[in-house]
Amino acid sequence: MDPGDLRNLLEQVRTGAVTVPAALDHLESGAVADLGYAHVDLHRRTRCGFPEVIFCQGKASVWIEGVVRKLIEAKQDCLATRVSEEQAEALAKSFPTAEQDRVARTFWLPVNPPPPPRGRVVVITAGTSDLPVAREAVVTAQSLGCGTSLLVDVGVAGIHRLLRHQAEFTGADAVIVVAGMDGALPSVVGGLVDCPVIAVPTSIGYGTAFSGLAPLLTMLNSCSANVVVVNIDNGFKAGYVAALLVRKISGQ
Amino acid sequence: MDPGDLRNLLEQVRTGAVTVPAALDHLESGAVADLGYAHVDLHRRTRCGFPEVIFCQGKASVWIEGVVRKLIEAKQDCLATRVSEEQAEALAKSFPTAEQDRVARTFWLPVNPPPPPRGRVVVITAGTSDLPVAREAVVTAQSLGCGTSLLVDVGVAGIHRLLRHQAEFTGADAVIVVAGMDGALPSVVGGLVDCPVIAVPTSIGYGTAFSGLAPLLTMLNSCSANVVVVNIDNGFKAGYVAALLVRKISGQ
Amino acid sequence: MDPGDLRNLLEQVRTGAVTVPAALDHLESGAVADLGYAHVDLHRRTRCGFPEVIFCQGKASVWIEGVVRKLIEAKQDCLATRVSEEQAEALAKSFPTAEQDRVARTFWLPVNPPPPPRGRVVVITAGTSDLPVAREAVVTAQSLGCGTSLLVDVGVAGIHRLLRHQAEFTGADAVIVVAGMDGALPSVVGGLVDCPVIAVPTSIGYGTAFSGLAPLLTMLNSCSANVVVVNIDNGFKAGYVAALLVRKISGQ
Amino acid sequence: MDPGDLRNLLEQVRTGAVTVPAALDHLESGAVADLGYAHVDLHRRTRCGFPEVIFCQGKASVWIEGVVRKLIEAKQDCLATRVSEEQAEALAKSFPTAEQDRVARTFWLPVNPPPPPRGRVVVITAGTSDLPVAREAVVTAQSLGCGTSLLVDVGVAGIHRLLRHQAEFTGADAVIVVAGMDGALPSVVGGLVDCPVIAVPTSIGYGTAFSGLAPLLTMLNSCSANVVVVNIDNGFKAGYVAALLVRKISGQ
Amino acid sequence: MDPGDLRNLLEQVRTGAVTVPAALDHLESGAVADLGYAHVDLHRRTRCGFPEVIFCQGKASVWIEGVVRKLIEAKQDCLATRVSEEQAEALAKSFPTAEQDRVARTFWLPVNPPPPPRGRVVVITAGTSDLPVAREAVVTAQSLGCGTSLLVDVGVAGIHRLLRHQAEFTGADAVIVVAGMDGALPSVVGGLVDCPVIAVPTSIGYGTAFSGLAPLLTMLNSCSANVVVVNIDNGFKAGYVAALLVRKISGQ
Amino acid sequence: MDPGDLRNLLEQVRTGAVTVPAALDHLESGAVADLGYAHVDLHRRTRCGFPEVIFCQGKASVWIEGVVRKLIEAKQDCLATRVSEEQAEALAKSFPTAEQDRVARTFWLPVNPPPPPRGRVVVITAGTSDLPVAREAVVTAQSLGCGTSLLVDVGVAGIHRLLRHQAEFTGADAVIVVAGMDGALPSVVGGLVDCPVIAVPTSIGYGTAFSGLAPLLTMLNSCSANVVVVNIDNGFKAGYVAALLVRKISGQ
Amino acid sequence: MDPGDLRNLLEQVRTGAVTVPAALDHLESGAVADLGYAHVDLHRRTRCGFPEVIFCQGKASVWIEGVVRKLIEAKQDCLATRVSEEQAEALAKSFPTAEQDRVARTFWLPVNPPPPPRGRVVVITAGTSDLPVAREAVVTAQSLGCGTSLLVDVGVAGIHRLLRHQAEFTGADAVIVVAGMDGALPSVVGGLVDCPVIAVPTSIGYGTAFSGLAPLLTMLNSCSANVVVVNIDNGFKAGYVAALLVRKISGQ
Amino acid sequence: MDPGDLRNLLEQVRTGAVTVPAALDHLESGAVADLGYAHVDLHRRTRCGFPEVIFCQGKASVWIEGVVRKLIEAKQDCLATRVSEEQAEALAKSFPTAEQDRVARTFWLPVNPPPPPRGRVVVITAGTSDLPVAREAVVTAQSLGCGTSLLVDVGVAGIHRLLRHQAEFTGADAVIVVAGMDGALPSVVGGLVDCPVIAVPTSIGYGTAFSGLAPLLTMLNSCSANVVVVNIDNGFKAGYVAALLVRKISGQ
Repeated sequence: MDPGDLRNLLEQVRTGAVTVPAALDHLESGAVADLGYAHVDLHRRTRCGFPEVIFCQGKASVWIEGVVRKLIEAKQDCLATRVSEEQAEALAKSFPTAEQDRVARTFWLPVNPPPPPRGRVVVITAGTSDLPVAREAVVTAQSLGCGTSLLVDVGVAGIHRLLRHQAEFTGADAVIVVAGMDGALPSVVGGLVDCPVIAVPTSIGYGTAFSGLAPLLTMLNSCSANVVVVNIDNGFKAGYVAALLVRKISGQ
Repeated sequence: MDPGDLRNLLEQVRTGAVTVPAALDHLESGAVADLGYAHVDLHRRTRCGFPEVIFCQGKASVWIEGVVRKLIEAKQDCLATRVSEEQAEALAKSFPTAEQDRVARTFWLPVNPPPPPRGRVVVITAGTSDLPVAREAVVTAQSLGCGTSLLVDVGVAGIHRLLRHQAEFTGADAVIVVAGMDGALPSVVGGLVDCPVIAVPTSIGYGTAFSGLAPLLTMLNSCSANVVVVNIDNGFKAGYVAALLVRKISGQ
Repeated sequence: MDPGDLRNLLEQVRTGAVTVPAALDHLESGAVADLGYAHVDLHRRTRCGFPEVIFCQGKASVWIEGVVRKLIEAKQDCLATRVSEEQAEALAKSFPTAEQDRVARTFWLPVNPPPPPRGRVVVITAGTSDLPVAREAVVTAQSLGCGTSLLVDVGVAGIHRLLRHQAEFTGADAVIVVAGMDGALPSVVGGLVDCPVIAVPTSIGYGTAFSGLAPLLTMLNSCSANVVVVNIDNGFKAGYVAALLVRKISGQ
Repeated sequence: MDPGDLRNLLEQVRTGAVTVPAALDHLESGAVADLGYAHVDLHRRTRCGFPEVIFCQGKASVWIEGVVRKLIEAKQDCLATRVSEEQAEALAKSFPTAEQDRVARTFWLPVNPPPPPRGRVVVITAGTSDLPVAREAVVTAQSLGCGTSLLVDVGVAGIHRLLRHQAEFTGADAVIVVAGMDGALPSVVGGLVDCPVIAVPTSIGYGTAFSGLAPLLTMLNSCSANVVVVNIDNGFKAGYVAALLVRKISGQ
Repeated sequence: MDPGDLRNLLEQVRTGAVTVPAALDHLESGAVADLGYAHVDLHRRTRCGFPEVIFCQGKASVWIEGVVRKLIEAKQDCLATRVSEEQAEALAKSFPTAEQDRVARTFWLPVNPPPPPRGRVVVITAGTSDLPVAREAVVTAQSLGCGTSLLVDVGVAGIHRLLRHQAEFTGADAVIVVAGMDGALPSVVGGLVDCPVIAVPTSIGYGTAFSGLAPLLTMLNSCSANVVVVNIDNGFKAGYVAALLVRKISGQ
Repeated sequence: MDPGDLRNLLEQVRTGAVTVPAALDHLESGAVADLGYAHVDLHRRTRCGFPEVIFCQGKASVWIEGVVRKLIEAKQDCLATRVSEEQAEALAKSFPTAEQDRVARTFWLPVNPPPPPRGRVVVITAGTSDLPVAREAVVTAQSLGCGTSLLVDVGVAGIHRLLRHQAEFTGADAVIVVAGMDGALPSVVGGLVDCPVIAVPTSIGYGTAFSGLAPLLTMLNSCSANVVVVNIDNGFKAGYVAALLVRKISGQ
Repeated sequence: MDPGDLRNLLEQVRTGAVTVPAALDHLESGAVADLGYAHVDLHRRTRCGFPEVIFCQGKASVWIEGVVRKLIEAKQDCLATRVSEEQAEALAKSFPTAEQDRVARTFWLPVNPPPPPRGRVVVITAGTSDLPVAREAVVTAQSLGCGTSLLVDVGVAGIHRLLRHQAEFTGADAVIVVAGMDGALPSVVGGLVDCPVIAVPTSIGYGTAFSGLAPLLTMLNSCSANVVVVNIDNGFKAGYVAALLVRKISGQ
Repeated sequence: MDPGDLRNLLEQVRTGAVTVPAALDHLESGAVADLGYAHVDLHRRTRCGFPEVIFCQGKASVWIEGVVRKLIEAKQDCLATRVSEEQAEALAKSFPTAEQDRVARTFWLPVNPPPPPRGRVVVITAGTSDLPVAREAVVTAQSLGCGTSLLVDVGVAGIHRLLRHQAEFTGADAVIVVAGMDGALPSVVGGLVDCPVIAVPTSIGYGTAFSGLAPLLTMLNSCSANVVVVNIDNGFKAGYVAALLVRKISGQ
């Protein structure tokens, strides 16, 4: 709470325009729903631009359902990621109208019909095996209101495959590049565009790929100055940040 | 070159509107100055939004000077980073009007007086020792036209130090958080803002900080969805990406 | 055995107040029950404050049962941790009155009804997925006589969730913070309390969490001076040390 | 600020007992001195039990002096660690009455004569080379009011060296064990005492000690349940936590 | 496309000898078949000497079948590696005439009967357990037209086993050495031959073999100057490079 | 073959005392049986003191049976290690008189009744979970003719458990210490005996034990000068080396 | 020695055609000069195609000079690498006619004037800072008789810089690619040529380049099938292997 | 102290044959000289076979001198390792009759003229640069009474260099193999001898040798069953263990 607002509130308390309990509520830090097994952050949308997203790994299905219900109750769009097969089935029974993407392992239950997509986020993969992570990025960005397109299997071992699609990503608001193995694609793409490139290493590959460590290091060391990195296989975060950019650019 | 442009060019060659040598020049991939020890990319500004920046580590001073001269000749702003003491002295003699920041280890020689800064990038550090990296980010973002502000030593061990400055970074276009040791600050800042947070790990700290590996991992694993990461001590890249965002948001 | 005691004992042998066999028993280093597959340390309670605790991982059920029986025989409380599903079933048959917590994976069979809990240990988790490790800490501290409370899912991405519960952990005797992913929570909590914070990294998270290595490093590098660390997922040790502190503070 | 206090304050504002500016001050989060290059946390003593301690590594001497002056002004004891030779000389000129320990690399400038030491902290080292880190722990604990004793070079390769000193550490409030190489000493000590053992790995040793990583892992994996760990060479944190324990036990 | 060719083409466009669409096709970079889930590089044979090879790990069987069909259609030999049991069965149904080697996990479907093998590639393994990787190398080299021989279980612990077979690998065009555990064999072989040795570490072995990391490091540090290295378990790449050498030596 | 022997042989060829084919056989390096999938080293007993031992991991059962048969044929004792459940069953059918130890995962088929055991090898474990590795060491040493004894669960957290058994390992020819977790036991034992201590790290333990890496590093860094180390979980090698020592000491 | 040759030799001994001492010499394994501090392998040229090369790191200058003298005496070309400043000066005094390249840190003293270079090896670097390693490769390949060319600073961040030079490396016998930071260049080059690509990671770069580990992993994981890898900064080995290839292709 | 001895002692106390103070002394654990900065273990020779050896790294010269004096006083041979240049000079002044080996970095001051050496320890190095570590092993083994011989620069890249010296190490009591880079030599030697091979990795080499980690892993994974390993560069421990073996074999 910034000092100016605080001064106003205190003045209103002094004049009686605001009652003490109301001020108390207001001063308490944000609306949080305590479910025992989770604290649902209901002011996140206001504070951070988008509602809380549920990371499902390692959680009981009933816990996830509880959080979904609380978000619905609070009239908030609900996106969940890393939904296991078992969780997906349980959620499908409880929320039959939700969209589930089993490649991306996502669950999506919006409150209202979505507004028309804005901006232009391009998701590019080096190989066919990177598709699940790329889909997670696409679903996330779409859920948060972005226009997206997807370009698959254009890795650097056949550089002309990428170059012939150059028109499709030139001028994008943000480009997400998903790559395993040598992780070299973001550096090349980075040198071809004038927007940030969000690089996502994937855990695909032979021996020393070390479950994604090799492409992660490649991307952190990218010689292209516009490449930033997120965690291994973290398509969600890439889609989220791209959507933040688009929202800023759209002036919202 | 996108297919539409290519078709146009070929039509112009066919009709004679463009001569073969001219078309040839046009088709050749970008203007590059080959200095023997370096290929200076003179079309980078067109393609990527900003001119090439010189990374000085491991280079002879005469090589750096050669590149600077080539950029000046091509009427391009010249920014160099990781300038060592020895290189700085050599450059100061050759280019006495350039601005050198010895904390940030940068060299800055613009062609024209800079336009008024646009946008709002906030750089935050966890500790006092993170200042050199933060300065590199600030100088880079400023050189690329951004308005910047700097908030030092507000690490999470005294969380109120950060919270009392919240107004200063709320509503920023981008926030850069520079932190060594536990690298926990970006996660906290990430939960308080609605823009991307660019996290820069630094190599400051005791034993298991492992020259920045510890905060790097912390930041990659940040539980805040809007945190992206660049390489250890890479203030330059953070400033560069922040400037790209600002440029996109400003609609340029 | 300290020199003073030793001198006394030898004097008593000399005077005949103590027989040689009795002295021999006394001088032999502690009562240990040798079961062939295990040496049960029956003097641990005297020496270290609490009886031996059984770590079940990698052990045959019959071995565990043998140790439990030996401890019961010696009138000692029996706590076992890391009890697998299979071991739990075997133990339930042999010791039907024991309490087993399947989230914490613990087995608890006290000799006498417990005394009223003393002291105040607060266990805090960053996420919902950290619950099993947190429960292990809670069960351990309770078994060793502590009053405990548990605060779940108050990670730093929504810092106000933690701050609004500040009264619940201010003034605690010890705080245990359980966190995976970025492991940033102990640093923040550490700056808010005047007692030791025992940080427990968990193996929850995406790629570079590296099965808990990332939060472990974060916690070791915590910029809060009161944060100490135990092994990944080791809720037991955190609960044990917290109980030691409480016992010391209670003057027992 | 806990809800009860907050309600009271608001009532006082309502009744006029407290003016709005006074309430505003009160509500603002803690006294922090902003020096430009550092935010000095002057409420740390109240919140965390001890004043802020200055970590000198990577800081300019003038910055350190500025923080020392601010703490003196605020009538707070001033402890600084990791003081380099160069910093030590500069500080000696500015603050000639301060105590500097060049083995421990510490600077200590108390406001008032210290009260009589309380409690009993024993610092044990495995080898002679671990002395500097052990001294840092001793100086820290003493500065924070503890009674300390130091036992040097009693590593496990000659276990009787430790055992003959057993009386010196039995019954301690806390034991700090400092060890490099195999880092095995804390496990042995842990099995002999009924208090927490704070283990400090040091960066002394041959090849695979890997600058302290080997003893760090040993200590994290200690089979003694009362062993907690701090960062490599971090004698300061060990001394600090020991002092916290003593303060709690002393009921202060 | 080199400048001379480009100039010619443009001249032909100018004179009308080549139509604009034809030139356009020619200028577009290479024939690529876009299947949605994959971009099949049909000019690879021309550009790189051999057709594209399908890496099957992490791909749906239908995707693999689609790529195989596209290659057949383009009259290209089709080699696939890392074929899982499940994929192998699906492919066997769709392409019953293909050769599948279940030890090597390969799939091979040539367009025409192979020409007589050329050159001489010797594949040597340190142990029996290295056979699957060695077989992948053999099948690859054979598919690409090489003469191969295989020498199994001649590791350095019984150096005379290797020496007595020396005549079999002396004078080879290339030697591939496959070894896990200590990975020492390539260094010894390297000192006995006058051709390049391609070393392939395998993930066989006890604890610190670290899934092939130990032999990988051994091989990278080989004191024999003619040893180059490929990724862990990557028999395919070793066979591929050996075939490239043979093709060069054969002057094709 | 040493030069003196060689000279003799050549003289004998010259005089006709030895025929050329006989000399040829003699000069060829050792008897090796080539089974296609394995080279069985039949002169190993002569050269290295003990026959070849079969490491079963990653090998087909028929291959193992083939090697066993070849060794039997050559009248050599046959020891196999790392025998999986599946391999054990197959071997039991083919060689019903062999001894299989399913805890140690060994197979043992001697040609003749063993001679009386010689020497004294003591195997000590830190915990109960280290038993399988310890058993592998015991079976190996026994198969190679040593007298052995086994002392289980005397880790350093209760140091008196070890000390009261001191008489059992004092004066041994070699001591093998098997330990996971902190791996501290070999350092303590090393300081109590006058023979080499062969330390075997095991892959038992919590998080940062990192599958045996932590105790491995502890042991490599042991401050006791008589501690040597073998690979993680490699009870076989420890038993083998101990047997070599005993054989040397026995003067055989 | 192969069995046929051996049989011949023995027959010659039998008939007296060869004396016993002559046969003895022949049977002894190779001519080696033992200097006490080094064994110089004088048959290496015969066995491996090129004479022994001196790796100077960590050696006294007098030792290096001794080996050089021995090689000269044996009429062999002498190449030394990793020559330090101090060693270079000492060698310059003793062998003033030798060529020393202080960027490449090499020493080169041929016995005869070199034959005309054969073949075509292209060395490409990603950046200017990679020059010293590239020069080591060039000098090595040239010393061993190859024709070489060098292309500097054409990293993937400006992919057109590479593409415009494509004609220069198309059709080469071997391409050596030297790159630090992200190490992405070999993958791109690999997809453009039909010869082996020898990738050399360099230790240039920011934080997580980890002294060359990052580009090493990138290169090992290269998605181009013709990329093999040598050790970090090992320009020598790359040049050596390229020369071997050229020699094979030239049919020598 | 074993139970039998203890019973005797107690009986003697009972009968008065031993006084209480004498018994007390006897029961106290070993003679240890406490110098404040070090505990010198004067019973080590009795307990472990050899006197304590001083590891000098990280210690003040005066501390080392104090320990040397205490050992001389106790009539014990004095060996010190890792003696720096500075320490060497100080020790030379105080103990001018001591032998110092500046390649091995050792200090040796025996009490009496040494007995004739016994046994046969062979130290072998892979390269010339491994000499300092090998010398440390030689000096240590000699100081502890062994006959030693040294064989330098016979690495596996020219395997015949080793084989022609085979007679020199066949039949040794113990072989120490010192190797950096690929660390492959111990595996080869291990297959040629019937005694234990003590492998010492050294920190010599290019990039991925990682300061000795690469040869360490090679050696731990050695496929020769008689290879045990000590820490990187730890020639001392190798020499010490070899001497222990020789002493056992000599029956002393």
